[in-house]
Amino acid sequence: MDKQAWPIGVFDSGLGGLTVVKEIIKLLPNENIIYLGDTARVPYGTRSNEVIKKFSLEDVNFLLSKDVKCIVIACHTSSAVAGDFLKKIFHNIPIFDVISPILKKYKDNNNQIGVIGTGATITSKVYSKLKNVVQQPCPLFVPLIEEGEVSGNLITLLADKYLREMKNKKVKILILGCTHYPLISKVIVEVFPNVRLINPATFVASELKDFLIKNNLVNAQKRIGKKSLYVTDLNNRFREIAEMFLGEKLKGRVVKVNIN
Amino acid sequence: MDKQAWPIGVFDSGLGGLTVVKEIIKLLPNENIIYLGDTARVPYGTRSNEVIKKFSLEDVNFLLSKDVKCIVIACHTSSAVAGDFLKKIFHNIPIFDVISPILKKYKDNNNQIGVIGTGATITSKVYSKLKNVVQQPCPLFVPLIEEGEVSGNLITLLADKYLREMKNKKVKILILGCTHYPLISKVIVEVFPNVRLINPATFVASELKDFLIKNNLVNAQKRIGKKSLYVTDLNNRFREIAEMFLGEKLKGRVVKVNIN
Repeated sequence: MDKQAWPIGVFDSGLGGLTVVKEIIKLLPNENIIYLGDTARVPYGTRSNEVIKKFSLEDVNFLLSKDVKCIVIACHTSSAVAGDFLKKIFHNIPIFDVISPILKKYKDNNNQIGVIGTGATITSKVYSKLKNVVQQPCPLFVPLIEEGEVSGNLITLLADKYLREMKNKKVKILILGCTHYPLISKVIVEVFPNVRLINPATFVASELKDFLIKNNLVNAQKRIGKKSLYVTDLNNRFREIAEMFLGEKLKGRVVKVNIN
Repeated sequence: MDKQAWPIGVFDSGLGGLTVVKEIIKLLPNENIIYLGDTARVPYGTRSNEVIKKFSLEDVNFLLSKDVKCIVIACHTSSAVAGDFLKKIFHNIPIFDVISPILKKYKDNNNQIGVIGTGATITSKVYSKLKNVVQQPCPLFVPLIEEGEVSGNLITLLADKYLREMKNKKVKILILGCTHYPLISKVIVEVFPNVRLINPATFVASELKDFLIKNNLVNAQKRIGKKSLYVTDLNNRFREIAEMFLGEKLKGRVVKVNIN
Protein backbone atom coordinates (compact mmCIF):
# COMPACT_ATOMS: atom_id res chain seq x y z
CA MET A 1 0.00 0.00 0.00
CA ASP A 2 1.15 3.50 -0.89
CA LYS A 3 2.41 5.33 2.22
CA GLN A 4 0.01 8.23 1.53
CA ALA A 5 -2.88 5.86 2.19
CA TRP A 6 -1.43 4.70 5.51
CA PRO A 7 -3.47 5.82 8.49
CA ILE A 8 -2.65 8.56 10.95
CA GLY A 9 -2.26 7.03 14.42
CA VAL A 10 -3.80 8.91 17.34
CA PHE A 11 -3.65 7.83 20.96
CA ASP A 12 -5.13 9.06 24.19
CA SER A 13 -5.49 7.90 27.80
CA GLY A 14 -9.17 7.32 27.07
CA LEU A 15 -11.88 8.68 24.82
CA GLY A 16 -11.34 12.43 25.34
CA GLY A 17 -8.82 12.40 22.48
CA LEU A 18 -11.75 12.04 20.11
CA THR A 19 -12.12 15.83 20.43
CA VAL A 20 -8.72 15.97 18.69
CA VAL A 21 -9.83 13.46 16.06
CA LYS A 22 -12.86 15.69 15.44
CA GLU A 23 -10.57 18.62 14.53
CA ILE A 24 -8.32 16.43 12.36
CA ILE A 25 -11.38 15.17 10.44
CA LYS A 26 -12.47 18.78 9.78
CA LEU A 27 -9.18 19.62 8.07
CA LEU A 28 -8.28 16.20 6.65
CA PRO A 29 -11.55 14.35 5.98
CA ASN A 30 -10.04 11.84 3.57
CA GLU A 31 -7.36 10.56 5.91
CA ASN A 32 -7.62 7.08 7.41
CA ILE A 33 -7.30 7.26 11.19
CA ILE A 34 -6.45 4.63 13.77
CA TYR A 35 -7.32 5.73 17.31
CA LEU A 36 -6.18 4.00 20.48
CA GLY A 37 -7.88 4.85 23.77
CA ASP A 38 -6.30 3.28 26.86
CA THR A 39 -9.68 3.00 28.57
CA ALA A 40 -8.53 0.22 30.92
CA ARG A 41 -6.06 2.61 32.58
CA VAL A 42 -7.62 6.05 32.10
CA PRO A 43 -7.06 8.63 33.59
CA TYR A 44 -3.36 9.42 33.16
CA GLY A 45 -3.58 12.88 34.74
CA THR A 46 -3.39 11.64 38.34
CA ARG A 47 -0.46 9.24 37.85
CA SER A 48 3.32 9.57 38.26
CA ASN A 49 5.57 10.60 35.38
CA GLU A 50 7.12 7.14 35.37
CA VAL A 51 3.77 5.41 34.84
CA ILE A 52 2.57 7.98 32.29
CA LYS A 53 5.74 7.36 30.25
CA LYS A 54 5.36 3.58 30.50
CA PHE A 55 1.71 3.64 29.41
CA SER A 56 2.41 6.12 26.58
CA LEU A 57 5.25 3.93 25.31
CA GLU A 58 2.87 0.98 25.13
CA ASP A 59 0.33 3.13 23.29
CA VAL A 60 2.89 4.14 20.65
CA ASN A 61 4.13 0.58 20.25
CA PHE A 62 0.59 -0.55 19.55
CA LEU A 63 0.09 2.15 16.88
CA LEU A 64 3.43 1.26 15.26
CA SER A 65 2.22 -2.34 14.90
CA LYS A 66 -0.50 -0.93 12.63
CA ASP A 67 1.73 0.78 10.02
CA VAL A 68 0.82 4.40 10.68
CA LYS A 69 2.48 7.21 8.71
CA CYS A 70 2.66 9.51 11.75
CA ILE A 71 1.44 9.66 15.33
CA VAL A 72 -0.57 12.28 17.21
CA ILE A 73 -0.47 12.32 21.01
CA ALA A 74 -3.99 13.56 21.67
CA CYS A 75 -3.62 13.33 25.45
CA HIS A 76 -2.33 16.54 27.04
CA THR A 77 -0.96 14.72 30.08
CA SER A 78 1.00 12.36 27.86
CA SER A 79 2.14 15.26 25.63
CA ALA A 80 3.35 17.19 28.68
CA VAL A 81 5.07 14.37 30.53
CA ALA A 82 6.07 11.89 27.80
CA GLY A 83 6.18 13.96 24.58
CA ASP A 84 9.94 14.58 24.43
CA PHE A 85 10.66 11.09 25.74
CA LEU A 86 8.60 9.47 22.96
CA LYS A 87 10.07 11.65 20.21
CA LYS A 88 13.57 10.68 21.34
CA ILE A 89 12.85 6.96 21.37
CA PHE A 90 10.81 6.83 18.17
CA HIS A 91 12.84 9.23 16.04
CA ASN A 92 12.00 7.38 12.83
CA ILE A 93 8.34 8.36 12.87
CA PRO A 94 6.91 11.88 13.01
CA ILE A 95 5.18 12.44 16.35
CA PHE A 96 2.89 15.39 16.99
CA ASP A 97 1.70 16.52 20.39
CA VAL A 98 -0.97 18.95 21.53
CA ILE A 99 1.34 21.27 23.47
CA SER A 100 4.23 22.15 21.12
CA PRO A 101 2.02 24.13 18.65
CA ILE A 102 0.73 26.26 21.55
CA LEU A 103 4.21 26.98 22.88
CA LYS A 104 5.27 27.99 19.35
CA LYS A 105 2.24 30.17 18.73
CA TYR A 106 2.38 32.07 22.05
CA LYS A 107 6.12 32.22 22.71
CA ASP A 108 6.31 35.97 22.07
CA ASN A 109 2.89 36.83 23.42
CA ASN A 110 2.76 39.52 26.10
CA ASN A 111 -0.84 39.14 27.28
CA GLN A 112 -1.69 37.26 30.45
CA ILE A 113 -2.19 33.64 29.36
CA GLY A 114 -4.01 31.10 31.47
CA VAL A 115 -3.56 27.33 31.22
CA ILE A 116 -5.90 24.77 32.76
CA GLY A 117 -5.07 21.06 32.75
CA THR A 118 -4.75 17.86 34.78
CA GLY A 119 -2.53 17.71 37.85
CA ALA A 120 0.25 15.97 35.91
CA THR A 121 0.13 18.47 33.02
CA ILE A 122 0.41 21.51 35.27
CA THR A 123 3.04 19.92 37.55
CA SER A 124 5.17 19.13 34.47
CA LYS A 125 5.72 22.91 34.09
CA VAL A 126 5.80 22.49 30.30
CA TYR A 127 3.82 25.73 29.97
CA SER A 128 6.19 27.64 32.24
CA LYS A 129 8.22 28.43 29.10
CA LEU A 130 5.54 31.01 28.21
CA LYS A 131 5.72 34.55 29.59
CA ASN A 132 2.96 35.89 31.88
CA VAL A 133 1.37 32.52 32.39
CA VAL A 134 -1.10 31.56 35.14
CA GLN A 135 -1.54 27.81 35.55
CA GLN A 136 -4.34 25.97 37.33
CA PRO A 137 -4.81 22.22 37.76
CA CYS A 138 -8.49 21.28 37.39
CA PRO A 139 -8.54 17.60 38.40
CA LEU A 140 -12.31 17.35 38.82
CA PHE A 141 -13.30 18.64 35.37
CA VAL A 142 -12.51 15.26 33.73
CA PRO A 143 -14.67 13.03 35.97
CA LEU A 144 -17.56 15.52 35.89
CA ILE A 145 -17.49 15.77 32.10
CA GLU A 146 -17.25 11.97 31.76
CA GLU A 147 -20.41 11.74 33.88
CA GLY A 148 -22.16 14.13 31.51
CA GLU A 149 -22.09 17.03 34.00
CA VAL A 150 -21.33 19.62 31.30
CA SER A 151 -23.90 22.17 32.44
CA GLY A 152 -25.76 23.01 35.63
CA ASN A 153 -24.89 23.90 39.22
CA LEU A 154 -22.14 21.43 39.88
CA ILE A 155 -19.83 22.20 36.96
CA THR A 156 -20.54 25.94 37.28
CA LEU A 157 -19.58 25.92 40.96
CA LEU A 158 -16.38 24.04 40.13
CA ALA A 159 -15.47 26.26 37.17
CA ASP A 160 -15.96 29.32 39.32
CA LYS A 161 -13.62 27.89 41.95
CA TYR A 162 -10.90 26.85 39.47
CA LEU A 163 -11.00 30.06 37.42
CA ARG A 164 -11.16 32.64 40.21
CA GLU A 165 -7.42 33.30 40.31
CA MET A 166 -7.27 33.58 36.49
CA LYS A 167 -9.98 36.23 36.61
CA ASN A 168 -8.21 38.15 39.36
CA LYS A 169 -5.00 38.07 37.37
CA LYS A 170 -6.78 39.46 34.31
CA VAL A 171 -6.06 36.54 32.02
CA LYS A 172 -7.06 37.33 28.42
CA ILE A 173 -6.37 34.00 26.68
CA LEU A 174 -7.18 30.64 28.23
CA ILE A 175 -5.57 27.44 26.90
CA LEU A 176 -7.89 24.43 27.28
CA GLY A 177 -5.07 22.07 28.27
CA CYS A 178 -7.06 18.82 28.35
CA THR A 179 -9.03 17.02 25.64
CA HIS A 180 -12.21 17.16 27.75
CA TYR A 181 -12.42 20.89 28.28
CA PRO A 182 -13.90 21.98 24.93
CA LEU A 183 -17.11 20.31 26.12
CA ILE A 184 -17.51 22.87 28.88
CA SER A 185 -16.53 25.95 26.86
CA LYS A 186 -19.97 27.45 27.45
CA VAL A 187 -19.73 27.08 31.24
CA ILE A 188 -16.20 28.52 31.27
CA VAL A 189 -17.30 31.59 29.32
CA GLU A 190 -20.33 32.02 31.62
CA VAL A 191 -18.17 32.22 34.75
CA PHE A 192 -15.30 34.00 32.97
CA PRO A 193 -16.81 36.35 30.35
CA ASN A 194 -14.64 37.87 27.63
CA VAL A 195 -11.80 35.39 27.99
CA ARG A 196 -10.63 33.93 24.69
CA LEU A 197 -10.63 30.13 24.72
CA ILE A 198 -7.95 28.26 22.78
CA ASN A 199 -8.48 24.63 21.85
CA PRO A 200 -5.04 23.14 21.09
CA ALA A 201 -6.68 20.42 18.96
CA THR A 202 -7.26 22.94 16.16
CA PHE A 203 -3.56 23.86 16.17
CA VAL A 204 -2.28 20.31 16.05
CA ALA A 205 -4.74 19.47 13.24
CA SER A 206 -3.44 22.44 11.28
CA GLU A 207 0.22 21.52 11.94
CA LEU A 208 -0.51 17.96 10.86
CA LYS A 209 -2.12 19.12 7.62
CA ASP A 210 0.86 21.37 6.78
CA PHE A 211 3.22 18.49 7.46
CA LEU A 212 1.33 16.03 5.23
CA ILE A 213 1.20 18.53 2.36
CA LYS A 214 4.88 19.47 2.67
CA ASN A 215 5.97 15.83 2.74
CA ASN A 216 3.64 14.66 0.00
CA LEU A 217 1.84 12.37 2.44
CA VAL A 218 -1.76 13.54 1.96
CA ASN A 219 -4.05 10.62 1.24
CA ALA A 220 -5.09 10.93 -2.43
CA GLN A 221 -8.40 9.08 -2.06
CA LYS A 222 -11.53 11.14 -2.69
CA ARG A 223 -13.79 9.30 -0.25
CA ILE A 224 -14.12 9.90 3.50
CA GLY A 225 -11.27 8.20 5.36
CA LYS A 226 -11.72 4.98 7.30
CA LYS A 227 -11.77 5.32 11.09
CA SER A 228 -10.70 2.43 13.33
CA LEU A 229 -11.16 2.66 17.06
CA TYR A 230 -9.13 0.48 19.42
CA VAL A 231 -9.68 0.51 23.17
CA THR A 232 -8.15 -1.43 26.06
CA ASP A 233 -11.51 -1.74 27.82
CA LEU A 234 -15.12 -1.60 26.70
CA ASN A 235 -17.54 -0.77 29.50
CA ASN A 236 -21.28 -0.28 29.09
CA ARG A 237 -20.97 3.50 28.81
CA PHE A 238 -18.33 3.39 26.08
CA ARG A 239 -20.48 4.40 23.10
CA GLU A 240 -22.24 7.22 24.92
CA ILE A 241 -18.96 8.76 26.10
CA ALA A 242 -17.17 8.28 22.75
CA GLU A 243 -19.99 9.99 20.83
CA MET A 244 -20.06 12.86 23.33
CA PHE A 245 -16.41 13.64 22.55
CA LEU A 246 -16.56 12.94 18.84
CA GLY A 247 -19.71 15.04 18.49
CA GLU A 248 -21.30 12.54 16.10
CA LYS A 249 -22.40 8.89 15.91
CA LEU A 250 -19.60 6.34 15.96
CA LYS A 251 -19.05 4.70 12.62
CA GLY A 252 -16.47 2.06 11.77
CA ARG A 253 -15.30 -0.82 13.87
CA VAL A 254 -14.41 -0.83 17.56
CA VAL A 255 -11.90 -3.42 18.74
CA LYS A 256 -10.82 -4.23 22.28
CA VAL A 257 -7.09 -4.93 22.54
CA ASN A 258 -4.44 -5.79 25.11
CA ILE A 259 -1.40 -3.55 24.74
CA ASN A 260 0.86 -4.58 27.62
CA MET B 1 7.56 -19.03 60.39
CA ASP B 2 4.46 -20.12 62.27
CA LYS B 3 1.35 -19.61 60.12
CA GLN B 4 -0.27 -17.51 62.89
CA ALA B 5 2.42 -14.91 62.33
CA TRP B 6 1.81 -14.77 58.58
CA PRO B 7 0.31 -11.49 57.43
CA ILE B 8 -3.26 -10.83 56.37
CA GLY B 9 -3.30 -9.75 52.70
CA VAL B 10 -5.58 -6.87 51.78
CA PHE B 11 -6.01 -5.45 48.30
CA ASP B 12 -7.87 -2.54 46.78
CA SER B 13 -8.05 -0.70 43.46
CA GLY B 14 -6.22 2.18 45.14
CA LEU B 15 -5.83 3.67 48.59
CA GLY B 16 -9.49 3.78 49.67
CA GLY B 17 -9.13 0.26 51.05
CA LEU B 18 -7.09 1.74 53.88
CA THR B 19 -10.47 2.58 55.50
CA VAL B 20 -10.93 -1.21 55.71
CA VAL B 21 -7.41 -1.67 57.11
CA LYS B 22 -8.28 0.94 59.73
CA GLU B 23 -11.20 -1.21 60.98
CA ILE B 24 -9.09 -4.39 60.90
CA ILE B 25 -6.42 -2.70 63.00
CA LYS B 26 -9.04 -1.68 65.59
CA LEU B 27 -10.11 -5.31 66.14
CA LEU B 28 -6.83 -7.06 65.41
CA PRO B 29 -4.00 -4.67 66.31
CA ASN B 30 -1.34 -7.36 66.57
CA GLU B 31 -1.82 -8.79 63.11
CA ASN B 32 0.77 -8.21 60.40
CA ILE B 33 -0.86 -6.74 57.30
CA ILE B 34 0.27 -6.56 53.69
CA TYR B 35 -1.75 -4.08 51.66
CA LEU B 36 -1.70 -3.80 47.86
CA GLY B 37 -3.20 -0.72 46.20
CA ASP B 38 -3.38 -0.86 42.41
CA THR B 39 -2.81 2.88 42.15
CA ALA B 40 -1.54 2.67 38.54
CA ARG B 41 -4.97 1.49 37.39
CA VAL B 42 -7.38 3.00 39.93
CA PRO B 43 -10.40 3.42 39.70
CA TYR B 44 -11.99 0.00 39.03
CA GLY B 45 -15.57 1.25 39.40
CA THR B 46 -15.85 2.61 35.86
CA ARG B 47 -14.38 -0.45 34.09
CA SER B 48 -15.91 -3.55 32.51
CA ASN B 49 -16.41 -6.76 34.49
CA GLU B 50 -13.78 -8.47 32.34
CA VAL B 51 -11.11 -5.91 33.21
CA ILE B 52 -12.10 -5.76 36.90
CA LYS B 53 -11.70 -9.56 37.10
CA LYS B 54 -8.34 -9.47 35.29
CA PHE B 55 -6.93 -6.74 37.56
CA SER B 56 -8.30 -8.42 40.72
CA LEU B 57 -6.71 -11.71 39.71
CA GLU B 58 -3.35 -9.98 39.38
CA ASP B 59 -3.86 -8.36 42.79
CA VAL B 60 -4.51 -11.73 44.45
CA ASN B 61 -1.57 -13.35 42.69
CA PHE B 62 0.69 -10.65 44.05
CA LEU B 63 -0.54 -11.16 47.62
CA LEU B 64 -0.12 -14.93 47.31
CA SER B 65 3.52 -14.39 46.39
CA LYS B 66 3.91 -12.89 49.88
CA ASP B 67 2.71 -15.87 51.97
CA VAL B 68 -0.47 -14.42 53.43
CA LYS B 69 -2.71 -16.52 55.68
CA CYS B 70 -5.90 -15.09 54.21
CA ILE B 71 -7.01 -12.34 51.82
CA VAL B 72 -9.43 -9.45 52.23
CA ILE B 73 -10.91 -7.81 49.13
CA ALA B 74 -11.24 -4.27 50.46
CA CYS B 75 -12.53 -2.90 47.15
CA HIS B 76 -16.33 -3.00 46.86
CA THR B 77 -16.24 -3.00 43.06
CA SER B 78 -13.88 -5.97 43.06
CA SER B 79 -15.96 -7.72 45.76
CA ALA B 80 -19.15 -7.21 43.73
CA VAL B 81 -17.80 -8.14 40.32
CA ALA B 82 -14.90 -10.52 41.02
CA GLY B 83 -15.59 -11.90 44.54
CA ASP B 84 -17.15 -15.24 43.55
CA PHE B 85 -14.74 -15.61 40.64
CA LEU B 86 -11.70 -15.21 42.91
CA LYS B 87 -13.04 -17.56 45.60
CA LYS B 88 -13.59 -20.24 42.96
CA ILE B 89 -10.10 -19.94 41.49
CA PHE B 90 -8.24 -19.60 44.78
CA HIS B 91 -10.15 -22.14 46.85
CA ASN B 92 -7.10 -23.04 48.92
CA ILE B 93 -6.92 -19.70 50.68
CA PRO B 94 -9.68 -18.03 52.71
CA ILE B 95 -10.91 -14.92 50.88
CA PHE B 96 -13.10 -12.31 52.57
CA ASP B 97 -15.01 -9.60 50.74
CA VAL B 98 -16.82 -6.48 51.91
CA ILE B 99 -20.26 -7.41 50.55
CA SER B 100 -21.00 -10.97 51.81
CA PRO B 101 -21.20 -9.94 55.50
CA ILE B 102 -23.77 -7.27 54.63
CA LEU B 103 -25.91 -9.68 52.59
CA LYS B 104 -25.81 -12.13 55.52
CA LYS B 105 -26.64 -9.52 58.14
CA TYR B 106 -29.57 -7.94 56.26
CA LYS B 107 -31.03 -10.92 54.41
CA ASP B 108 -34.16 -11.02 56.59
CA ASN B 109 -34.45 -7.31 57.14
CA ASN B 110 -37.77 -5.69 56.25
CA ASN B 111 -36.83 -2.01 56.44
CA GLN B 112 -36.09 0.00 53.32
CA ILE B 113 -32.35 -0.41 52.74
CA GLY B 114 -30.35 1.92 50.53
CA VAL B 115 -27.06 1.05 48.86
CA ILE B 116 -24.68 3.56 47.30
CA GLY B 117 -21.64 2.47 45.30
CA THR B 118 -19.66 2.80 42.08
CA GLY B 119 -21.31 2.22 38.71
CA ALA B 120 -19.84 -1.29 38.45
CA THR B 121 -20.94 -2.26 41.98
CA ILE B 122 -24.54 -1.18 41.45
CA THR B 123 -24.73 -2.61 37.91
CA SER B 124 -23.50 -5.98 39.25
CA LYS B 125 -26.85 -6.29 41.10
CA VAL B 126 -25.11 -8.11 43.93
CA TYR B 127 -27.29 -6.21 46.42
CA SER B 128 -30.51 -7.08 44.59
CA LYS B 129 -30.62 -10.24 46.75
CA LEU B 130 -31.82 -8.03 49.63
CA LYS B 131 -35.50 -7.20 50.05
CA ASN B 132 -36.74 -3.59 49.81
CA VAL B 133 -33.48 -2.29 48.45
CA VAL B 134 -32.93 1.07 46.70
CA GLN B 135 -29.64 1.29 44.82
CA GLN B 136 -27.87 4.39 43.59
CA PRO B 137 -24.58 4.65 41.68
CA CYS B 138 -22.56 7.64 42.92
CA PRO B 139 -19.67 7.79 40.43
CA LEU B 140 -18.52 11.29 41.36
CA PHE B 141 -18.11 10.71 45.10
CA VAL B 142 -14.74 8.94 44.59
CA PRO B 143 -12.98 11.65 42.56
CA LEU B 144 -14.31 14.42 44.82
CA ILE B 145 -13.16 12.64 47.98
CA GLU B 146 -9.74 11.92 46.45
CA GLU B 147 -9.41 15.64 45.77
CA GLY B 148 -10.16 16.35 49.43
CA GLU B 149 -13.66 17.71 48.72
CA VAL B 150 -15.15 16.06 51.81
CA SER B 151 -17.11 19.09 53.01
CA GLY B 152 -18.50 22.28 51.48
CA ASN B 153 -20.85 23.23 48.67
CA LEU B 154 -19.69 20.85 45.98
CA ILE B 155 -19.96 17.55 47.86
CA THR B 156 -23.19 18.69 49.57
CA LEU B 157 -24.81 19.51 46.23
CA LEU B 158 -23.76 16.14 44.85
CA ALA B 159 -24.89 14.19 47.93
CA ASP B 160 -28.24 15.91 47.77
CA LYS B 161 -28.62 14.89 44.13
CA TYR B 162 -27.58 11.27 44.64
CA LEU B 163 -29.62 10.72 47.82
CA ARG B 164 -32.89 12.38 46.80
CA GLU B 165 -34.59 9.18 45.65
CA MET B 166 -33.46 7.33 48.79
CA LYS B 167 -35.06 10.05 50.91
CA ASN B 168 -38.30 9.92 48.93
CA LYS B 169 -38.42 6.16 49.32
CA LYS B 170 -37.99 6.47 53.09
CA VAL B 171 -34.77 4.51 53.32
CA LYS B 172 -33.85 3.83 56.97
CA ILE B 173 -30.47 2.09 56.60
CA LEU B 174 -27.83 3.20 54.11
CA ILE B 175 -24.98 0.87 53.14
CA LEU B 176 -21.79 2.78 52.32
CA GLY B 177 -20.88 0.54 49.39
CA CYS B 178 -17.47 2.00 48.58
CA THR B 179 -14.31 2.34 50.67
CA HIS B 180 -14.30 6.12 50.20
CA TYR B 181 -17.73 6.92 51.56
CA PRO B 182 -17.03 6.78 55.32
CA LEU B 183 -15.07 10.02 54.75
CA ILE B 184 -18.25 11.88 53.84
CA SER B 185 -20.51 10.38 56.53
CA LYS B 186 -21.06 13.83 58.00
CA VAL B 187 -22.20 15.32 54.68
CA ILE B 188 -24.50 12.36 54.02
CA VAL B 189 -26.19 12.73 57.40
CA GLU B 190 -26.54 16.48 56.86
CA VAL B 191 -28.49 16.04 53.62
CA PHE B 192 -30.24 12.88 54.81
CA PRO B 193 -30.91 13.25 58.56
CA ASN B 194 -31.89 10.22 60.67
CA VAL B 195 -30.62 7.64 58.17
CA ARG B 196 -28.45 4.94 59.77
CA LEU B 197 -25.11 4.59 58.00
CA ILE B 198 -23.52 1.15 57.72
CA ASN B 199 -19.79 0.85 57.02
CA PRO B 200 -19.20 -2.69 55.68
CA ALA B 201 -15.54 -2.46 56.77
CA THR B 202 -16.57 -2.98 60.41
CA PHE B 203 -18.44 -6.17 59.45
CA VAL B 204 -15.61 -7.68 57.45
CA ALA B 205 -13.16 -6.88 60.26
CA SER B 206 -15.42 -8.64 62.71
CA GLU B 207 -15.91 -11.66 60.41
CA LEU B 208 -12.15 -11.85 59.94
CA LYS B 209 -11.53 -11.80 63.70
CA ASP B 210 -14.06 -14.61 64.29
CA PHE B 211 -12.43 -16.66 61.56
CA LEU B 212 -8.92 -16.24 62.95
CA ILE B 213 -10.02 -17.19 66.47
CA LYS B 214 -12.01 -20.22 65.28
CA ASN B 215 -9.14 -21.50 63.16
CA ASN B 216 -6.43 -20.79 65.72
CA LEU B 217 -4.79 -18.32 63.34
CA VAL B 218 -4.61 -15.24 65.59
CA ASN B 219 -1.11 -13.82 65.71
CA ALA B 220 0.24 -14.56 69.20
CA GLN B 221 2.71 -11.65 69.28
CA LYS B 222 2.00 -8.98 71.89
CA ARG B 223 3.39 -6.05 69.89
CA ILE B 224 1.58 -3.97 67.25
CA GLY B 225 1.57 -5.81 63.92
CA LYS B 226 3.84 -4.85 61.03
CA LYS B 227 2.18 -3.03 58.13
CA SER B 228 3.60 -3.24 54.60
CA LEU B 229 2.16 -1.09 51.86
CA TYR B 230 2.65 -2.02 48.20
CA VAL B 231 1.40 0.18 45.38
CA THR B 232 1.61 -0.03 41.59
CA ASP B 233 2.18 3.73 41.25
CA LEU B 234 3.50 6.41 43.55
CA ASN B 235 2.43 9.91 42.58
CA ASN B 236 3.22 13.08 44.51
CA ARG B 237 -0.10 13.05 46.36
CA PHE B 238 0.25 9.45 47.53
CA ARG B 239 1.06 10.07 51.20
CA GLU B 240 -1.60 12.74 51.66
CA ILE B 241 -4.35 10.52 50.20
CA ALA B 242 -3.20 7.37 52.03
CA GLU B 243 -3.20 9.15 55.39
CA MET B 244 -6.64 10.63 54.72
CA PHE B 245 -8.08 7.11 54.35
CA LEU B 246 -6.04 5.49 57.11
CA GLY B 247 -6.87 8.31 59.50
CA GLU B 248 -3.34 8.40 60.87
CA LYS B 249 0.27 8.92 59.79
CA LEU B 250 1.71 6.22 57.55
CA LYS B 251 4.24 4.05 59.30
CA GLY B 252 6.14 1.12 57.83
CA ARG B 253 7.60 0.76 54.39
CA VAL B 254 5.99 1.67 51.06
CA VAL B 255 7.12 -0.26 47.99
CA LYS B 256 6.23 0.33 44.35
CA VAL B 257 5.69 -2.93 42.45
CA ASN B 258 4.75 -4.18 38.99
CA ILE B 259 2.04 -6.81 39.20
CA ASN B 260 1.24 -7.57 35.56
